[in-house]
Amino acid sequence: MNPPDPKITLIVTGGTLDKDYQTTTGELMFCETHLPEMLQQANTTLSIQTHIPMLKDSLDMTDFDRQCIAELCEQADTDSIVISHGTDTMVETARMLSDTLILNNKTIVLTGAMRPYRLGHSDAMFNLGTAIMAAQLADAGVYIAMNGELFQANQVSKNHQKGVFELNV
Amino acid sequence: MNPPDPKITLIVTGGTLDKDYQTTTGELMFCETHLPEMLQQANTTLSIQTHIPMLKDSLDMTDFDRQCIAELCEQADTDSIVISHGTDTMVETARMLSDTLILNNKTIVLTGAMRPYRLGHSDAMFNLGTAIMAAQLADAGVYIAMNGELFQANQVSKNHQKGVFELNV
Amino acid sequence: MNPPDPKITLIVTGGTLDKDYQTTTGELMFCETHLPEMLQQANTTLSIQTHIPMLKDSLDMTDFDRQCIAELCEQADTDSIVISHGTDTMVETARMLSDTLILNNKTIVLTGAMRPYRLGHSDAMFNLGTAIMAAQLADAGVYIAMNGELFQANQVSKNHQKGVFELNV
Amino acid sequence: MNPPDPKITLIVTGGTLDKDYQTTTGELMFCETHLPEMLQQANTTLSIQTHIPMLKDSLDMTDFDRQCIAELCEQADTDSIVISHGTDTMVETARMLSDTLILNNKTIVLTGAMRPYRLGHSDAMFNLGTAIMAAQLADAGVYIAMNGELFQANQVSKNHQKGVFELNV
Repeated sequence: MNPPDPKITLIVTGGTLDKDYQTTTGELMFCETHLPEMLQQANTTLSIQTHIPMLKDSLDMTDFDRQCIAELCEQADTDSIVISHGTDTMVETARMLSDTLILNNKTIVLTGAMRPYRLGHSDAMFNLGTAIMAAQLADAGVYIAMNGELFQANQVSKNHQKGVFELNV
Repeated sequence: MNPPDPKITLIVTGGTLDKDYQTTTGELMFCETHLPEMLQQANTTLSIQTHIPMLKDSLDMTDFDRQCIAELCEQADTDSIVISHGTDTMVETARMLSDTLILNNKTIVLTGAMRPYRLGHSDAMFNLGTAIMAAQLADAGVYIAMNGELFQANQVSKNHQKGVFELNV
Repeated sequence: MNPPDPKITLIVTGGTLDKDYQTTTGELMFCETHLPEMLQQANTTLSIQTHIPMLKDSLDMTDFDRQCIAELCEQADTDSIVISHGTDTMVETARMLSDTLILNNKTIVLTGAMRPYRLGHSDAMFNLGTAIMAAQLADAGVYIAMNGELFQANQVSKNHQKGVFELNV
Repeated sequence: MNPPDPKITLIVTGGTLDKDYQTTTGELMFCETHLPEMLQQANTTLSIQTHIPMLKDSLDMTDFDRQCIAELCEQADTDSIVISHGTDTMVETARMLSDTLILNNKTIVLTGAMRPYRLGHSDAMFNLGTAIMAAQLADAGVYIAMNGELFQANQVSKNHQKGVFELNV
């Protein structure tokens, strides 16, 4: 039997969600993505096709990186797309995708975490849950799923002081 | 300033999600709900009104308990309702609510966990994320959010052998 | 280069320390021992030789099981021996070893946990640390290391109500 | 009934063990010590008197800080003393204490962690266990308990590349 057609495309780009503590240096770094482990912990029965174009702090993300993410969205075989992304420039990437992509029926949802998955007590699993559900239910468009809410790409900002995403006034 | 009107009503009923290991007896028991701690870990900015009518293994749930849950749904001030519930009779409660409630505009989403939140490596945070998002996005109706998917109450069963929820054939 | 001679013999027998939650049955069971993972987490540089004669709830331990543990102690190449063991009959096994073994220079330390390692918030790592240090520092004899204290085999009881080990009065 | 006389004096000074991830800044910082929580998780029945003179990265520790630690050791009511300390200058503090203190019957054991307690998968609980046991069993002197081993203050160095403590050659 062939595996079922993928229902969700997951594009992993790094961000705080995937950082871990490096004991010899005492710094937070990227070693590998934890998304496959997270999906297993979540007992998902969804067919998910994962791409890992980069593992970067979102402050280090370049125009070329964003172009690469956009192309993966365009080539995706599914209408539901989830992107894991650092929170610092998540809004910037969401807007670039919203401004440049021809979406057809695609629903693209960016999410991330304020505390790394691997450090425990993290919002990563919750946020991933909200993003995966929103990618299946929301109308075509580009969104950010953070703090339990779904924001349209052009209507949201990160409040860096509070560490939460808010509707633009 | 008054607190914002609640956007989501959360009805806590127990289930595996809320169990913890009792060191002196070596058994899994209910002590208190972990939902408030989970919502804090999730950094939700949603206004959530929580009711805790019971903390029960869902195999011990009675018709009276289900009636109590139904009444809390009817009296809820919000259109989005999330119910945490044991997985063993989650489908039974969902069907009873679907068969008896006049929903108006209400979207009711039941969820739970296969592994207790407090024991680590749990699906609880992910499932809560999917349920909270589905309660905001799905059409009026009664649903189950498990394994990353959203099922209509009358179209789903628990596969006890695999430990997952599946569409009825 | 040959590996260094083992400095500590670790005999794994099961007990609460090694139990994990089984999602499909909802019960606590043995799947595999977590001791190697625990030693890696502890960054031990000690040379440790591990034996796993059984993975049992200590209430299910038979005279034959205890005889098997005694023989592993006798055949051990090291003077320092640590035994992981369920707490319910830890005192019984410690006394049997104390009554029957010819110790020569051997220091044998039993330890365990009140909460499984795998469930988080566990005393397992702490107890293992106390046992490994006591096995290196204490005089020849049979001991129990629990609750941060070191007890001689014949002078200790488990207070089942409090869930702690206490000196016999 | 009066509380029992303290059997162990615990001097908390900070170090990696006590750091936590700060979500808004994305940095590892000190907020409060986790030692009381760790002792509770360990189910210790020992009477432990805790002092918290500072919460510092050990690279920031001054001569004045070390003098303060030395005075707390001198004034301690117990023969067993455990000091939590950052690993980078743990050897330096141990040597200073060893060179300047009149120990009488005091056994002083420094320990710490390579990964913060609060980030999970940490060596902190294990190391604390080894230090608390060594402080009760070792002869008077100043020691470092790390990696499951007990080192005399003047015979140990940190191998920064490997992230472990080793006997001086």
